[in-house]
Amino acid sequence: MKRIAVLTSGGDAPGMNAAVRAVVRKAITEGMEVFGINYGYAGMVAGDIFPLDIASVGDKIARGGTFLYSARYPEFATREGQLAGIDQLKKHGIEGVVVIGGDGSYHGAMRLTEHGFPAVGIPGTIDNDIPGTDYTIGFDTAVNTALDAIDRLRDTATSHVRTFVVEVMGRGAGDIALWAGVAGGADDIIIPEHDFDIKEIMTRIEAGRKRGKKHTIIVLAEGVMGGQEFADKLKEAGNDTDTRVSILGHVQRGGMPTARDRVLASKFGAYAVELLKEGRGGLAVGIEKEELVAKDIIDTLTNHKHKADLSLYQLNADLSI
Amino acid sequence: MKRIAVLTSGGDAPGMNAAVRAVVRKAITEGMEVFGINYGYAGMVAGDIFPLDIASVGDKIARGGTFLYSARYPEFATREGQLAGIDQLKKHGIEGVVVIGGDGSYHGAMRLTEHGFPAVGIPGTIDNDIPGTDYTIGFDTAVNTALDAIDRLRDTATSHVRTFVVEVMGRGAGDIALWAGVAGGADDIIIPEHDFDIKEIMTRIEAGRKRGKKHTIIVLAEGVMGGQEFADKLKEAGNDTDTRVSILGHVQRGGMPTARDRVLASKFGAYAVELLKEGRGGLAVGIEKEELVAKDIIDTLTNHKHKADLSLYQLNADLSI
Amino acid sequence: MKRIAVLTSGGDAPGMNAAVRAVVRKAITEGMEVFGINYGYAGMVAGDIFPLDIASVGDKIARGGTFLYSARYPEFATREGQLAGIDQLKKHGIEGVVVIGGDGSYHGAMRLTEHGFPAVGIPGTIDNDIPGTDYTIGFDTAVNTALDAIDRLRDTATSHVRTFVVEVMGRGAGDIALWAGVAGGADDIIIPEHDFDIKEIMTRIEAGRKRGKKHTIIVLAEGVMGGQEFADKLKEAGNDTDTRVSILGHVQRGGMPTARDRVLASKFGAYAVELLKEGRGGLAVGIEKEELVAKDIIDTLTNHKHKADLSLYQLNADLSI
Amino acid sequence: MKRIAVLTSGGDAPGMNAAVRAVVRKAITEGMEVFGINYGYAGMVAGDIFPLDIASVGDKIARGGTFLYSARYPEFATREGQLAGIDQLKKHGIEGVVVIGGDGSYHGAMRLTEHGFPAVGIPGTIDNDIPGTDYTIGFDTAVNTALDAIDRLRDTATSHVRTFVVEVMGRGAGDIALWAGVAGGADDIIIPEHDFDIKEIMTRIEAGRKRGKKHTIIVLAEGVMGGQEFADKLKEAGNDTDTRVSILGHVQRGGMPTARDRVLASKFGAYAVELLKEGRGGLAVGIEKEELVAKDIIDTLTNHKHKADLSLYQLNADLSI
Repeated sequence: MKRIAVLTSGGDAPGMNAAVRAVVRKAITEGMEVFGINYGYAGMVAGDIFPLDIASVGDKIARGGTFLYSARYPEFATREGQLAGIDQLKKHGIEGVVVIGGDGSYHGAMRLTEHGFPAVGIPGTIDNDIPGTDYTIGFDTAVNTALDAIDRLRDTATSHVRTFVVEVMGRGAGDIALWAGVAGGADDIIIPEHDFDIKEIMTRIEAGRKRGKKHTIIVLAEGVMGGQEFADKLKEAGNDTDTRVSILGHVQRGGMPTARDRVLASKFGAYAVELLKEGRGGLAVGIEKEELVAKDIIDTLTNHKHKADLSLYQLNADLSI
Repeated sequence: MKRIAVLTSGGDAPGMNAAVRAVVRKAITEGMEVFGINYGYAGMVAGDIFPLDIASVGDKIARGGTFLYSARYPEFATREGQLAGIDQLKKHGIEGVVVIGGDGSYHGAMRLTEHGFPAVGIPGTIDNDIPGTDYTIGFDTAVNTALDAIDRLRDTATSHVRTFVVEVMGRGAGDIALWAGVAGGADDIIIPEHDFDIKEIMTRIEAGRKRGKKHTIIVLAEGVMGGQEFADKLKEAGNDTDTRVSILGHVQRGGMPTARDRVLASKFGAYAVELLKEGRGGLAVGIEKEELVAKDIIDTLTNHKHKADLSLYQLNADLSI
Repeated sequence: MKRIAVLTSGGDAPGMNAAVRAVVRKAITEGMEVFGINYGYAGMVAGDIFPLDIASVGDKIARGGTFLYSARYPEFATREGQLAGIDQLKKHGIEGVVVIGGDGSYHGAMRLTEHGFPAVGIPGTIDNDIPGTDYTIGFDTAVNTALDAIDRLRDTATSHVRTFVVEVMGRGAGDIALWAGVAGGADDIIIPEHDFDIKEIMTRIEAGRKRGKKHTIIVLAEGVMGGQEFADKLKEAGNDTDTRVSILGHVQRGGMPTARDRVLASKFGAYAVELLKEGRGGLAVGIEKEELVAKDIIDTLTNHKHKADLSLYQLNADLSI
Repeated sequence: MKRIAVLTSGGDAPGMNAAVRAVVRKAITEGMEVFGINYGYAGMVAGDIFPLDIASVGDKIARGGTFLYSARYPEFATREGQLAGIDQLKKHGIEGVVVIGGDGSYHGAMRLTEHGFPAVGIPGTIDNDIPGTDYTIGFDTAVNTALDAIDRLRDTATSHVRTFVVEVMGRGAGDIALWAGVAGGADDIIIPEHDFDIKEIMTRIEAGRKRGKKHTIIVLAEGVMGGQEFADKLKEAGNDTDTRVSILGHVQRGGMPTARDRVLASKFGAYAVELLKEGRGGLAVGIEKEELVAKDIIDTLTNHKHKADLSLYQLNADLSI
């Protein structure tokens, strides 16, 4: 393979730029040419494709967001959309493509490969909800951003002896909540993967207050319910502490990536190029037990489900007494 | 005066601890004894009063929140409440008190002084809405916290070509919005002190998009309306860009204070002690045109109003073309 | 004036990009054209001059360093150099120039004006050592960067009961040391503007240790001597605490500018354009007592000297007991 | 086991407090009592031992350094020292001890166990140089601190077209350099585990400059040589770029721990308590391939050596073209 392209798709995540940089630099090191595609699959179909050289990804490793932009493009679910995309790629002599994004993006990559056009997926999303990898690009940064907010909220919660319900992102997954909750010393973590018992939570809050605790921090994954809804449930269950809701929202998607996300993105990008160089498509790269892996995308999407690490849930219960 | 006390009251602000430290250390340097009062006026009336020595404020300068806690206590608006507070202070031999907080806190300080018990106010609030000073303790930190969020939101706004309405704190004042907006390169800043014209805003958004701008950031002071309400207004006015709302909320109250807030808090704390040492009460310290000032609290509260620096509004309009 | 240029010169400082952005945007708002000059005066003489439009400064407000680059160019001290620079500017139809930098940069601006080519200076340096302004662009960011380092060093100093000598930048000025020292709760601040007495410092260290203090932090301005040299002097004077030296170095020049630096840079940039628009050159903008000012560069350079705020020195002595 | 103690020893690392908190909370959850020991083994022998309850570790999870202090204590290498320590522990009815620190600390833990007093080690050091674990507590934070500095230096390096030699910590290990170097997009990473060829480095610098690169960043592990020494070697080898040295130093030891370090510390602390509860000593906890492990300390110390991940070295060489 002599010429490949790279795109970012789905929700943006810190470290996507570091992954694009790695794809570009590794491909050039391997003697290949690289093209960028703007706006994900939408740009592919529209032919928004342009060459990337070494310098074009200079100073990009530290930047949040994605300089290739991202966009939703449901039309790519159709065969027509996919073939139109391949046409555009072939016009530029491109023989393979690296797709950085979430599971929606993986579907596109799978279809391209089915049509004989090799595509490799890189897991890029803050939610850490993609099967076939222990960690996704952007997760570590989002957790630290959420943690910074929790640390700040603790200041003010303590000063006013308040309870805070902190709603964090994660779509259907509780990973951000679990990690930020354990790291933030949350009193409770509410995630989709584990039922909560509002009475137990109340018991815990009251026990904490009784022993002189000045704040209560409850980290809530957005996949369970909204922060205000949860606060209302607490109130119904008898909560009479001064309770506030903080929805961290889109700030969790931005910012300079952490070291870990940059290193992971660099590994993933380089590995995806190696796979394409060997002519292998239909794969998703990942990291499992500290080892780089490449898995069939179709298998990843159909036979597996992301699982949150529930040992963290138990750990927090043991430590937030 | 040989023995003074210090309390924090109203909404907490980064730098309050630095101010308490300055009061304690300066008082000891001047040969006085110092007491801390927990939970503001509520703690004063309840007698939650305890001695503070040099070491008790060690390592506090960098901490967010207030280690003396804060609380609302409407009962202090009554004569009975005030006299009960003075009784408690006198029990400990305390002759003067430093009150760190917002204008509600100033009222208490004024009443104490009227009852013959000298009190000095220090402006501590992130909102920067207190007359008699150019800056309040916590404002600089809150602005930088809001700015950090805006920088992060810009990453994701650009990646997805979105509009963000960023609701920042400030109660009735637009100062946080103005400073964070100018510093964040906001497309528009919506503040209570200046009417907005939704059509002009739409014109500006459309002009930006026409020349290729990938994001629109509108910084909205909470004193104008809620973020979602403003987004709805934009939509009514024809906004068809992908628009999201981010309410920064209580994270703006927390975090380690900036250098500026720590220096300002240190100056204010030391100056308040100097005034009490001279037996002067009923005053609020402040900084005006880089000079420390002390003003009659009563005059401050009745004859003056905080004014936002509208030159920043014009500056932003000139630069966010 | 219809066409102006802007350059950065001398040591880079966070906020220079925000100032360039303000110059460009304000000039365009005022109906002027703007050119950028790379590498300061060196680029001016070499003709490294190019047009800047609205978009060219997009997303630059948050970036550290200077995207126009900076360089030393002693040749500009000669009449030939200056005239060669003016020739290049005239080739592009440029009628005035904004120079962002330190006092070396101001000399160039003064000479250009003397040759009939209006130039306006903007004070940009982390050192805060330029007469005619209370604050320079980059100072607030550098102070916060130094403060972050001091906060980190305090963690490890306390854990190991150590003394740290922290050498900060500032050239001949003690401003960074004073602000970072007060904000960091330094035990002592050593600056060029105030003689130090090594015995008094030892007395203070010993007193602190005696009352149980676990760390000693001494902030030393580079203009006094090197950190190791100072540590040696401490040792000669009898210091037997476990003492380490930390030289913060060039990290103090980088990083995203603080809100304050971005706002100040925006004000300065816009104001400089207003002056040039009126055809006024030979001026340096500044801020004094919160007001924008414009002063004769020649007067600034010859009749004034930057003065550090020694009240901060006394404040720290009072509070670091 | 009903009563255990915990100490921190060796160089402090961010996350040590989170580990102590986890030990305390988990032990109490398991129905045990916990004591803290100040100043590591020195405090053990001196009897500086005190009870820790739930509240005593409140708000400690986010703090840098170690609130139990650390100290060197070579006397603990002797049998007398060890037995004196055990005597003190027994006086308080303590039956087992958790030791958080580096390999020096592990030796002490091994000796205690050999004398029949069960001790479990937790790897706490920024250097990541302890066998038996993929990661140590503090490593992730130190890497991010070094990365932040590299990001800042890149600003100023680019502005002035400079080369920076950035000396990072790590004792004999290159891990901090490798991770911070890859994440920072370093042009070269110089580590003890891999010979460097000064001519190759020069070739790379020159190639970068030729293609227009404005900065060169070389990350140097302190275990190889000092930063200035390396810069001198570069000069001898023909380097004529404007080159500066930045020694990051002790700031790398401080600061609030990252999410990852807090989670890792929490896991380690809880796991160490589980082991002691089962009466197992002479073990060091660790994480390998994402799984918690417990290994014989003696085996760890004698038969294994920490190995840096040299695939990162190659990755950087491929990407920093």
